[in-house]
Amino acid sequence: MKEIFERRSIRKYKKDTVSEETIEKIIRAGMAAPSAGNEQPWHFIVIKDKNIINEIPKFHAYSRMLHEVNCAIVVCGDLFLQKYEGFWVQDCSAATQNMLLMAQALGLGSVWLGVYPREERVEALKSLLGLPDNVIPLSILPIGYPAEEKMPSDRFDAFRIHREKW
Amino acid sequence: MKEIFERRSIRKYKKDTVSEETIEKIIRAGMAAPSAGNEQPWHFIVIKDKNIINEIPKFHAYSRMLHEVNCAIVVCGDLFLQKYEGFWVQDCSAATQNMLLMAQALGLGSVWLGVYPREERVEALKSLLGLPDNVIPLSILPIGYPAEEKMPSDRFDAFRIHREKW
Repeated sequence: MKEIFERRSIRKYKKDTVSEETIEKIIRAGMAAPSAGNEQPWHFIVIKDKNIINEIPKFHAYSRMLHEVNCAIVVCGDLFLQKYEGFWVQDCSAATQNMLLMAQALGLGSVWLGVYPREERVEALKSLLGLPDNVIPLSILPIGYPAEEKMPSDRFDAFRIHREKW
Repeated sequence: MKEIFERRSIRKYKKDTVSEETIEKIIRAGMAAPSAGNEQPWHFIVIKDKNIINEIPKFHAYSRMLHEVNCAIVVCGDLFLQKYEGFWVQDCSAATQNMLLMAQALGLGSVWLGVYPREERVEALKSLLGLPDNVIPLSILPIGYPAEEKMPSDRFDAFRIHREKW
């Protein structure tokens, strides 16, 4: 599980195109995530059209690195697929994390661009992608080969561990 | 990354005790998760006192397997540690997923028991653990050696993949 510690947020990418096979492996990892009552309330929008990708930084301030990639995946939750109300955010977050780890394992880079619960980002992305009302974008993952090297970051903090009670 | 596909929800456990070293490895994996602006808004409550663990199924209907384990970890979000409002749920979900994967890698079993956003579970757990107002329990992970064997589950569904737009 070295990927858990080696994964870093990548914001510089090479021009190389990511294969369809690789994209499917990443999405397959997302779909293997646990979900409340196994509801699997997710959808994945694979965007390769640079005209669409380049629209995103116009409304999402932290997403300028999208200009460098040839592929982005948007992870969405479908309220109609929920069995347990309110858990779609956690389900889709687990899926997103699996995808980041799989990208790392495949030698790719990515970064978790947060969308939900920022209303203006949600609405702009829904409009750009033509999402129905019941489908909410949670995160955007740029997918590409990293053009920056980052060392694993040690975030361990013993003060955040509590015993038995607070 | 076989752990992503091998991980299953384990609800039957052996009586063997989990070592402190193992518990720290699991929490270390949680702390390696990405978070909005690297805010790391998490706390981890390690419960080994069976009297405390056995209180949880009294208010959480899906947590009866807790009676079988000698350790449970509660993942909490701290609203005071948030830099980006509302993202603590996603941050703590990514941490939870990392922990499930690390448990799998170490030969342990676990299952994601959802707490937030169920108000009655949140309040009962806050009271049981003496959590301050700003600390919200998101999930509970029983930690133990699995006493059931489950095959990887193939959840791949091509219909959930969309191209360019919805």
